[in-house]
Amino acid sequence: MSARKRIEKTPVLKLRDGEATRAWDALAAEEPMEIRVSGEAVSVTMRTPGHDFELALGFCLTEGIVADAHAVETMRYCAGEDPETGLNTYNVVDLHLRGGVTVAPELKRNVYTTSSCGICGTASLEAVRRRATPVHDDPLRVPAALLDGLPGKLRAAQEVFDRTGGLHAAGLFDAGGTLLCLREDVGRHNAVDKVIGWAATEGRLPLRSHMLMVSGRVAFEIAQKALLAGIPLVAAVSAPSSLAVDLARETGMTLIGFLREGRMNVYAGEERVENV
Amino acid sequence: MSARKRIEKTPVLKLRDGEATRAWDALAAEEPMEIRVSGEAVSVTMRTPGHDFELALGFCLTEGIVADAHAVETMRYCAGEDPETGLNTYNVVDLHLRGGVTVAPELKRNVYTTSSCGICGTASLEAVRRRATPVHDDPLRVPAALLDGLPGKLRAAQEVFDRTGGLHAAGLFDAGGTLLCLREDVGRHNAVDKVIGWAATEGRLPLRSHMLMVSGRVAFEIAQKALLAGIPLVAAVSAPSSLAVDLARETGMTLIGFLREGRMNVYAGEERVENV
Repeated sequence: MSARKRIEKTPVLKLRDGEATRAWDALAAEEPMEIRVSGEAVSVTMRTPGHDFELALGFCLTEGIVADAHAVETMRYCAGEDPETGLNTYNVVDLHLRGGVTVAPELKRNVYTTSSCGICGTASLEAVRRRATPVHDDPLRVPAALLDGLPGKLRAAQEVFDRTGGLHAAGLFDAGGTLLCLREDVGRHNAVDKVIGWAATEGRLPLRSHMLMVSGRVAFEIAQKALLAGIPLVAAVSAPSSLAVDLARETGMTLIGFLREGRMNVYAGEERVENV
Repeated sequence: MSARKRIEKTPVLKLRDGEATRAWDALAAEEPMEIRVSGEAVSVTMRTPGHDFELALGFCLTEGIVADAHAVETMRYCAGEDPETGLNTYNVVDLHLRGGVTVAPELKRNVYTTSSCGICGTASLEAVRRRATPVHDDPLRVPAALLDGLPGKLRAAQEVFDRTGGLHAAGLFDAGGTLLCLREDVGRHNAVDKVIGWAATEGRLPLRSHMLMVSGRVAFEIAQKALLAGIPLVAAVSAPSSLAVDLARETGMTLIGFLREGRMNVYAGEERVENV
């Protein structure tokens, strides 16, 4: 499989009510990417190729491996050759830190994570809670009708999903409901890391008064990543987990689930939702 | 949040077309569980409480941390006290190996994984491929009509999904289409580990001529876990990733996606599907 593609074409046998046809199908591409910080491997994640620097930067920021985007001097692809073709696989990214800064020893782990793995490298849930700044004081207020429109905007902007059915999406919206950045990935948390990495590259962190919308469920990891980026409102098409709700309530984040077809469940931070 | 619950009840504000109501909602419970082998922490996964020993055993087997279920002498909950209540959190499980066997040094990592993280601790994709026994010679043959019936059986057996909308399910079927074991979890890979851990406890490994059906997508991690358990056919309600298809084709596994409503896409190993 070649690197860089977000879709892989593959032959498939389709069966329907006893009728067999052969066709080409589009699959969401999934490849491992190793993230290094000043040469030290900190994670390997299964991801959809594309926006790799954003993913690496977003991961390092939301996992607390790098405190600040300004600490990163350069990002580059490292050698990583395909054994068959000898070509660069683009599957190893190195973030070089300024001024000889290195990674904290407890984060020097060569860890394989997968397409939906978000808190690898974190010492504990309590550490996440300690590290995150609560967002109780964020002044964001959003009309319910504006929230109702977010899923449609997210879906309209998704490029790959309709062809593969296999990608998660994350979209960053401003307080007025304008979609600022959308990223797709086989991994829910990768899509979020790419969005936050994009915002970091643009110098937009912390994301006060912004909203994050994800295409699937909200587990703890998504809520904590949003929190570390300063986002006060997270909405999802599907269900939240109990721990995501707990975290949102503790930290003043607004958490909305089942946002679709003109309805929503507000699990935390309902003062930000104006139902007028 | 108390341990042991698979569902958490929570108050929620429901908005629909401008109408607000207050209700109680059921959330899929998510809690961290640390897995230790002979006292060494090998993983922490975000999981839905329940079937914890199956999860721990299945994880250790499908990650190659423990070669064989017979190597495990005892499994028990370790101390893990809730700081507020002082009660056992049931969130640390230790597998004690027979005869002083310890974990390979390269697997001694205290790694946080999340609810969808499956290959943490694995040294590389190539290692997975080397470790897995191909299933080309498995004699399983299945009528397409029998496969068509699997999603309905899976769904009918799911306890929690209908209440929370937030759980993945994995079901193990025999060659005749009988559901042998179903497990649900916030993590796709945890549900699979629980099923395989159950089979190990029952002395049923390797699972020749069995079928695994999952409720969502099939990424690489799910295919590799099934392969390490010897399962020759994996079917999913939704899409596979490109790497899952690659692995299935290399190893002789039958991989079926979009199995629903009388149709399916066969991505690999179509010789096992009898369309009569």
